[in-house]
Amino acid sequence: MTIYITGHKNPDTDSICSAIGYAALKGEGYAAGRLGNVNPETQFVLDHFGMAAPELLGDMAGQEIILVDHNEAAQSADGIEEAKILEILDHHKIGGLKTSEPILFCNVPVGCTATIVTMFYKQNGKTPDAKVAGLLCSAILSDTLAFRSPTCTETDKATALELAAIAGIEDVEAYAKEMFVAGSELGSKTEKEILYLDFKKFNSGNTTFGVGQVSSMSGEELQELKPRMQAYMEESFAEHGADMLFFMLTDIMDESTDLIYCGEGADAAVKAAFKSDAEDRTYLKGVMSRKKQIVPQLTDALK
Amino acid sequence: MTIYITGHKNPDTDSICSAIGYAALKGEGYAAGRLGNVNPETQFVLDHFGMAAPELLGDMAGQEIILVDHNEAAQSADGIEEAKILEILDHHKIGGLKTSEPILFCNVPVGCTATIVTMFYKQNGKTPDAKVAGLLCSAILSDTLAFRSPTCTETDKATALELAAIAGIEDVEAYAKEMFVAGSELGSKTEKEILYLDFKKFNSGNTTFGVGQVSSMSGEELQELKPRMQAYMEESFAEHGADMLFFMLTDIMDESTDLIYCGEGADAAVKAAFKSDAEDRTYLKGVMSRKKQIVPQLTDALK
Repeated sequence: MTIYITGHKNPDTDSICSAIGYAALKGEGYAAGRLGNVNPETQFVLDHFGMAAPELLGDMAGQEIILVDHNEAAQSADGIEEAKILEILDHHKIGGLKTSEPILFCNVPVGCTATIVTMFYKQNGKTPDAKVAGLLCSAILSDTLAFRSPTCTETDKATALELAAIAGIEDVEAYAKEMFVAGSELGSKTEKEILYLDFKKFNSGNTTFGVGQVSSMSGEELQELKPRMQAYMEESFAEHGADMLFFMLTDIMDESTDLIYCGEGADAAVKAAFKSDAEDRTYLKGVMSRKKQIVPQLTDALK
Repeated sequence: MTIYITGHKNPDTDSICSAIGYAALKGEGYAAGRLGNVNPETQFVLDHFGMAAPELLGDMAGQEIILVDHNEAAQSADGIEEAKILEILDHHKIGGLKTSEPILFCNVPVGCTATIVTMFYKQNGKTPDAKVAGLLCSAILSDTLAFRSPTCTETDKATALELAAIAGIEDVEAYAKEMFVAGSELGSKTEKEILYLDFKKFNSGNTTFGVGQVSSMSGEELQELKPRMQAYMEESFAEHGADMLFFMLTDIMDESTDLIYCGEGADAAVKAAFKSDAEDRTYLKGVMSRKKQIVPQLTDALK
């Protein structure tokens, strides 16, 4: 009977790629499984390296199973209580699971399960092939937002770069952007939906102003979005019930925000708040937080 | 505040030595603790390598703690529910513990936690000093019954031998015997207590016979015990309510049993059962199980 290796329900790139990577290391008798649909980002990764998605698993009662990227029954396969868990590789909090026998449970506080899977390759004196290395590298880039997440450790970064070399990924940043663009769901949304993804209103003096924000790993995606949002904000201005509208296009990779806006006085407020001479936009390097880096400054400027 | 590293309540040699060994690896800010008295075997080990026992810990609520050789709250320090568990190194079944953040939880199905602690030395490119290596080696010898337990893996054995070389233990078997003798509690028991440690009566034909068994890692200890038990069985024969008495002195290291006995016909039964010409004893190589290797044979011989 095949022993399935699976990530959590509603799988992300780490859950899919770590399962495939660990199954490849374990070899005969083991296969990767998944507990839900492959998301667009993961599909891009699988396509990029010419790999098939793992088998969709049903009820696992009575089977032997290895868990990656999760360690809680609630996140795992249906029937997990009646399955025999053989091993767990994870990087989350410890969730209270019990076993009847000693098992390998390797939970390491790193940014990505794929980093742990790669540790096991090394411990076994093995190297993943180029395709598997590509998947594992992609998982680390995904979970760590290309090394920008506070959960990212030096080990994650070093591991991803080693894997990239094996996989033949020459420009890791460029590849990560491509992956994040493929995974972005902004493309399928209307301008109104994007404005209201994360929108709040504030008051200063007699002025009510709204500030929306969208964050992306892709500067290109944001540049494509920017004129669409500017046009939408101007044509729909009256319906948002604010004296000024601001919209932050925050580029996670560049660690900057492109601030667009409309409404009478908004240009002056931005110039005062950010000491900028730009006419219809402000490129704000180092600005990513609406709460800390935009709203207090605008509030002061509008008093 | 010192971060304590501790094994389980009622600590054995692994719980004490793995705590000391891991604290030595972690270095400044960390100290080994213990959750109970040091047993005679562990005291022998500490004395042998000139090490002090870890500090006896009280309620750990509000403190930071690392668990070795256990992963269940019930086996751990008082106040563990209000302590912050930073790491767990263990080799038991997974016991349902929860944490609020990701932690290092390294549970490996090997024979001894000290084997896992030694893995961490290697992962960090470090080598334990001779004293610590001696403690870790002793823990492995203790938990694996000097490599004879079914829980012992090749990794445990290889690790213990590497540690023995660092510690300057020239004859690992001899050292293990010395440790097991020091840890044995047979020395403090009367012959009657030893006979009844594990004693059962059986019937065959018209004969009632009793078979007791004691197992030891030390052949010397058993040889010392043998004449005492023989004399006791003969002088107290009438009070045991059996036609024949048998007593198995089982040497775990030698994988053999020295069978002593008394009562009319016992000698003939032993000769018939085990095809032996010995007059008052039978050295039975490979015999360790009363249920499978002694009682059926005697039962057949007495029919």
